[in-house]
Amino acid sequence: MVVQVYGKAQAVCPQRVMHCLVELGLPFELVHVDIDAMEHKLPEYLEKQTLNSFIVSFPCFSPSDRFLTSPMATSISSWMDVEAINYNPWAFPVVFNLLVLPLRGAPGDREAAAAAVEEMSRVLEVYEKQLSKSKYLAGDEFTLADLTHIPATRYVVELCGGAHIFEGKERVKAWWEDITGRPAWKKVISFVESGKSSYSP
Amino acid sequence: MVVQVYGKAQAVCPQRVMHCLVELGLPFELVHVDIDAMEHKLPEYLEKQTLNSFIVSFPCFSPSDRFLTSPMATSISSWMDVEAINYNPWAFPVVFNLLVLPLRGAPGDREAAAAAVEEMSRVLEVYEKQLSKSKYLAGDEFTLADLTHIPATRYVVELCGGAHIFEGKERVKAWWEDITGRPAWKKVISFVESGKSSYSP
Repeated sequence: MVVQVYGKAQAVCPQRVMHCLVELGLPFELVHVDIDAMEHKLPEYLEKQTLNSFIVSFPCFSPSDRFLTSPMATSISSWMDVEAINYNPWAFPVVFNLLVLPLRGAPGDREAAAAAVEEMSRVLEVYEKQLSKSKYLAGDEFTLADLTHIPATRYVVELCGGAHIFEGKERVKAWWEDITGRPAWKKVISFVESGKSSYSP
Repeated sequence: MVVQVYGKAQAVCPQRVMHCLVELGLPFELVHVDIDAMEHKLPEYLEKQTLNSFIVSFPCFSPSDRFLTSPMATSISSWMDVEAINYNPWAFPVVFNLLVLPLRGAPGDREAAAAAVEEMSRVLEVYEKQLSKSKYLAGDEFTLADLTHIPATRYVVELCGGAHIFEGKERVKAWWEDITGRPAWKKVISFVESGKSSYSP
């Protein structure tokens, strides 16, 4: 049975899951859910996830065993927490106000977005320090801890005027070029842009 | 070697760790750190934790193997994420504005605290639903997913005028009485109030 990923191809959370599957060389099917029409809040979708009441976009990010059984598990888990608790709360309002709300025909709060971009930049100063200790966030290998940052950050940098968040942070800049240069991520972008509903390695 | 817990006895994060140790029947030493004087931001303490730049109170909460090797691991991990991402961001500003800042001689934002209490109440509606499916958050056993809620919620309910967050939520109310009635948690409170610096089961 092929994995089914529920969501909208352009949304950040499904992109994390798709990237993970592509890295692992697994095929998948994308089941389109119209999150802009709030289809993910319909009872049939809410039933599919316990934490439905919290989640804006879905599916939830499920860590892969392959990554999490490495000896770096604790470090990966800590840096995934940093993303979820200290980084995403700033990346999310940027994407939400500048991309998601306008798509839904609602005005986004541009001031809140601009303030959040500055907070992202501030948080990345800590990343700069961490990346002086190891090549990637959790150690010297690319892991979920890095991967989870990619989709939202890409939108902030490419579509939300946030390219300056890397300024003066040479290690963060090199890390960003490295992780977004991965063949698997490039395949995800091609897949998203293709509008297809199934992926095979 | 006995475990050393760094922090202030009254702070939420060390209380989580102490509760965990007491549940496991382990002795520990509490190494006092004067977080009100920002002692935890001194270089000697920052060195002790990778994520120092993010953390207000420390130590970080390290999950115990005993809890996380259970078959409920995924569910525990999800509900710990809910606490960190959807619950604590409201509990924290209540405690910070009404207890921590005044202790430091700074005025807290009472309006922000009141709004956060209402958000906690709203989030607990989802908990009420979850607790109709299982006795505890992650399943039918008490786990870290429950434990991690206790210290901050206690302050909100007992010292910050937030007792009404349980109103109309019978299952949440019963869960709260159950988890705060645990002998281990009562021992933590006694230990904190005793002013002692070491605990033996």
